[in-house]
Amino acid sequence: MARITLLTDFGTRDGYVGAMRGVIAAIAPDVRVDDVSHDLQAGDIVAASSALERYWRLYPPGTVHVVVVDPGVGTARRGIAVETDGRRFVGPDNGVFTPVLEAAARVVELRETAWLHHPVSATFHGRDVFAPVAAHLARGVGIDALGPRVVHPVLVDRPRLTMVDDAAHGVVVITDRFGNLVTNIPGALVPEAARARIAGREVPVLRTYGEAEPGRLLALVGSSGYLEIAVRDGSAADALGVGRGADVMVRPPR
Amino acid sequence: MARITLLTDFGTRDGYVGAMRGVIAAIAPDVRVDDVSHDLQAGDIVAASSALERYWRLYPPGTVHVVVVDPGVGTARRGIAVETDGRRFVGPDNGVFTPVLEAAARVVELRETAWLHHPVSATFHGRDVFAPVAAHLARGVGIDALGPRVVHPVLVDRPRLTMVDDAAHGVVVITDRFGNLVTNIPGALVPEAARARIAGREVPVLRTYGEAEPGRLLALVGSSGYLEIAVRDGSAADALGVGRGADVMVRPPR
Amino acid sequence: MARITLLTDFGTRDGYVGAMRGVIAAIAPDVRVDDVSHDLQAGDIVAASSALERYWRLYPPGTVHVVVVDPGVGTARRGIAVETDGRRFVGPDNGVFTPVLEAAARVVELRETAWLHHPVSATFHGRDVFAPVAAHLARGVGIDALGPRVVHPVLVDRPRLTMVDDAAHGVVVITDRFGNLVTNIPGALVPEAARARIAGREVPVLRTYGEAEPGRLLALVGSSGYLEIAVRDGSAADALGVGRGADVMVRPPR
Repeated sequence: MARITLLTDFGTRDGYVGAMRGVIAAIAPDVRVDDVSHDLQAGDIVAASSALERYWRLYPPGTVHVVVVDPGVGTARRGIAVETDGRRFVGPDNGVFTPVLEAAARVVELRETAWLHHPVSATFHGRDVFAPVAAHLARGVGIDALGPRVVHPVLVDRPRLTMVDDAAHGVVVITDRFGNLVTNIPGALVPEAARARIAGREVPVLRTYGEAEPGRLLALVGSSGYLEIAVRDGSAADALGVGRGADVMVRPPR
Repeated sequence: MARITLLTDFGTRDGYVGAMRGVIAAIAPDVRVDDVSHDLQAGDIVAASSALERYWRLYPPGTVHVVVVDPGVGTARRGIAVETDGRRFVGPDNGVFTPVLEAAARVVELRETAWLHHPVSATFHGRDVFAPVAAHLARGVGIDALGPRVVHPVLVDRPRLTMVDDAAHGVVVITDRFGNLVTNIPGALVPEAARARIAGREVPVLRTYGEAEPGRLLALVGSSGYLEIAVRDGSAADALGVGRGADVMVRPPR
Repeated sequence: MARITLLTDFGTRDGYVGAMRGVIAAIAPDVRVDDVSHDLQAGDIVAASSALERYWRLYPPGTVHVVVVDPGVGTARRGIAVETDGRRFVGPDNGVFTPVLEAAARVVELRETAWLHHPVSATFHGRDVFAPVAAHLARGVGIDALGPRVVHPVLVDRPRLTMVDDAAHGVVVITDRFGNLVTNIPGALVPEAARARIAGREVPVLRTYGEAEPGRLLALVGSSGYLEIAVRDGSAADALGVGRGADVMVRPPR
């Protein structure tokens, strides 16, 4: 039996997540449902896709990943389902699935009304569209039964990443809970003994926190495979006073 | 096998929810337990019953809904179980179950000590009373085995809702996480092309967010079936500076 | 099939918890995973061990309790597994398991790489070490297969508790979400009709909140078995302006 994960910006206290879980329980009572998070900043599509990138492929094939960060609910934006590498994805067509769509993916629009919770409200597609569709997928419905193929799903612009001579220039994509500044510079572009530059500061690239003194700035290739700026036992975001969008450069030692 | 849902104001970090889950796991290891929320404002009975109203009936019959918002723990307030429409409810008799009690419901007081976790503390009935009773209900115990019938359970005063000529006058019941102001005016009292009035502002009643410009105030019948005041891509609570208890009026167009 | 509980300081929004759950789902798809909390203050080992103490023994034998509050990740600190009284524990060797280690416990270091998620990062042992080890334990692997025995695991200093004549002197260990100040003075040291002293205030020790007037300070032996300072329908932390580490004394009536 498949598993469903939930990632939303609903918070939990209003009962919206309970409503989604109730709809799933009524359709697919034996399916496991994992809460990944309901604490995303309201409407933050970049944070949603960045979080999704951290876990989707660690789940086994067959898993249905639901993402509802949906500022466009009640407008003309489409609902979609995606299948790639054996995992399925359900949510709004607003770019949240960008990291998944870049792989070979099948995408369909959620147009077949048989799989929805009726009446379908104009404001809460988490309950009326995405939860019931995920439950039916987990029970074995194929994504082609959900609606017609989508050729050009919406993609979020990936932040700029350029090479100038031997230096990689990127940006901070996300500040995590610990104040680590996660960039879009992949580990493969970070040479041995490199130096990073951010907010006018030069920072050594180390292998692990343990190589820095407590309270000192360091850079390292983090657990997602991207360069991160960190402070051992502290917050790089606080220390540098920067966040998403800040320029970062990394280059070999001279 | 039945399912249990949990709604509390405990937060998670102190381990109180872990204690409730541990008690349930020891009694009914195969029962699914869904966290609806543990982030309710401490002691906020109106928020608890408002959240409960959003999800209880979406779960299938047999589900046991636990609500622990219990400022009166350690006083003479009763613990109760409720059965209505095939769902069961467990928690304090302080009004949290008001939306459920208005339907045809059986209510019993939790007096039979065989179903409790001993010793029963004076301060943590979530662990010692409500969690074990829910686990036994989920395993098949009937609510009449829990204690004597309660004839007059505590009800929370429903906020006032009156009709004056063709205008419905109600109030804001809850501000949700997005800053939407959810009222007690049911959709059935909202005429076509109506206008709403709140905080001295006149607001058009539309069908969906997409019909308003970004940043503009609108009203609509929300996903719970009640009139809501919203700002597209924004917060009505912030825009108007009002919250729970604010007067709202809706009337037909002139 | 065993159950796994998770207690971390990761928050949920970055997807780190989703990554841990994904690893577990891939190894042990039928195991139940309970979120106890992901909202611990970053790096707060005392809070983690205090929360763990509230729930670990309520779960049935066989349960695997994972705790990841791990400011030393990427340094020389060990990862360990503990077995005591039929429950298993997995996390960093930094003192989080102090309440468990004081009972008769077997402790091993996580050195056998066959149970890990590869490549093992230097910064995210929740995903690469603790989650997969917990999943294998839940599937039946014994803790001795994980690595060599640890003779002296790290213990957190227990806060001082002394008797002077007939008075017990202790400290506040944790402030819970309701503003209750939980001390390290066990109920067995609290005599009948005792008086407590904290922050220059004398406070009556009662049996339950209901014996105090709303808004008044009281002390009682709380649900964990320790003396707590509370305000009925309020916050003792706010009323007294003190928190962790504050001195508390309790003595018989004169």
